[in-house]
Amino acid sequence: MTESAAPGRLHGIGVGPGDPELMTVKAVRTLQGAPIVAYFAKDGQRSHARRIVERWIDGACEEMPLAYPLTTEIALADPRYGPTLCSFYDAAAAAIAARLCGGQDVALLCEGDPLFYGSFMHIYVRLKDRFAVSVCPGVTGMAGCWAAASQPMVWGDDVLTVLPGTLPGAILAERLAASDAAVIMKLGKNLAKVRSAVAAAGLTQRAIYVERGTTAEEVILPLRDKHDDEAPYFALVLVPARGGRRS
Amino acid sequence: MTESAAPGRLHGIGVGPGDPELMTVKAVRTLQGAPIVAYFAKDGQRSHARRIVERWIDGACEEMPLAYPLTTEIALADPRYGPTLCSFYDAAAAAIAARLCGGQDVALLCEGDPLFYGSFMHIYVRLKDRFAVSVCPGVTGMAGCWAAASQPMVWGDDVLTVLPGTLPGAILAERLAASDAAVIMKLGKNLAKVRSAVAAAGLTQRAIYVERGTTAEEVILPLRDKHDDEAPYFALVLVPARGGRRS
Repeated sequence: MTESAAPGRLHGIGVGPGDPELMTVKAVRTLQGAPIVAYFAKDGQRSHARRIVERWIDGACEEMPLAYPLTTEIALADPRYGPTLCSFYDAAAAAIAARLCGGQDVALLCEGDPLFYGSFMHIYVRLKDRFAVSVCPGVTGMAGCWAAASQPMVWGDDVLTVLPGTLPGAILAERLAASDAAVIMKLGKNLAKVRSAVAAAGLTQRAIYVERGTTAEEVILPLRDKHDDEAPYFALVLVPARGGRRS
Repeated sequence: MTESAAPGRLHGIGVGPGDPELMTVKAVRTLQGAPIVAYFAKDGQRSHARRIVERWIDGACEEMPLAYPLTTEIALADPRYGPTLCSFYDAAAAAIAARLCGGQDVALLCEGDPLFYGSFMHIYVRLKDRFAVSVCPGVTGMAGCWAAASQPMVWGDDVLTVLPGTLPGAILAERLAASDAAVIMKLGKNLAKVRSAVAAAGLTQRAIYVERGTTAEEVILPLRDKHDDEAPYFALVLVPARGGRRS
């Protein structure tokens, strides 16, 4: 392979909410055709996305782990946060670009859907003007969780609000009170704050806590029955609509 | 098959946004194992969902079309609307229940995801206390559309609002102005009203019109370049976030 080969294509692949069978047929086909499979991971830990594709990957592909220098060790408000992550994404994009320049396609895995809070987007904006990029959408984490809970979410004219749990509690409560239905993502260390915001909005009775939905480790319970403050980052809270317009 | 057989299971199957390859592996497997495949259709027209599964279905299954008595012929506000649809869903649920009682599984197809504005929910609430029900989530129409447009939607702390285009224009404009990012679904006859609401919120430059995303008939263009008011019901408008927190 030389620098003069036609450049490769970057594929952003949504691997869905957790159950490997909830990958799309297209995602599996694209993955199996890619010579290089890249994925983000917290340094020293296994990648969620890599674990989801385990059964679909053949041993022949080259793996390219991209290890975050940090995730929650320093606060988002810390002035080091942005520049540290920016440098990391620059380096990751450069590493992927080198392989694309060599004529090889690269499949970059994303939990859920690549363009919905996905790290893929940081690579996409850096490479989209230089290389061909395809995006294979995925089942979002929230859709996996409401399916796992068998919980209808929105009907007819209902408005759905998707809120990151990283927002300030007062904003969460205000947004929740103005929504027919809501999903609060990115729980992790934010669970206690989110619980208070849900209570302030008067929605505790309707709120459902879901952790690792669609996997063997799935936990689903009413938020009022979740008494501790331990939650993984990918846990979320569902507030389904009342279903006023259901026929 | 007799009434004394163990009852069958109802499967709500999300068939995704349009491209048959964007069905999940689980959806295809469940569909292929079901003796009866049910789907909603407008009377006299082919079902979108049925067309999506065409390549995955084997000739051996029995098909159960469920023909809506109306969709947009009478207004939502018309007093006949609710009772007419309610009777239809009662009858559809009874027809499915009869087959479940006979011991056969029924797969009910849904465009996008079954629990996200899906007609499946009307059957689910009628049968869930009498029969085993499983829900197979799908790639939503909106995720298919933003992937087709290669458009990152939400980053970091962004809030996403999902708005049915059936809402009054003033409410749409107010909700849009308060959102980091938004999706306006169910365009159809609502396009002119939605365009005005997007303009009133000052978002015309960021808005993207997508029709039949992920299919061969896909249309993607800036909303400002969509000059006529013709849009299918499944068209939508994307208003991506500015990406303020992108690293």
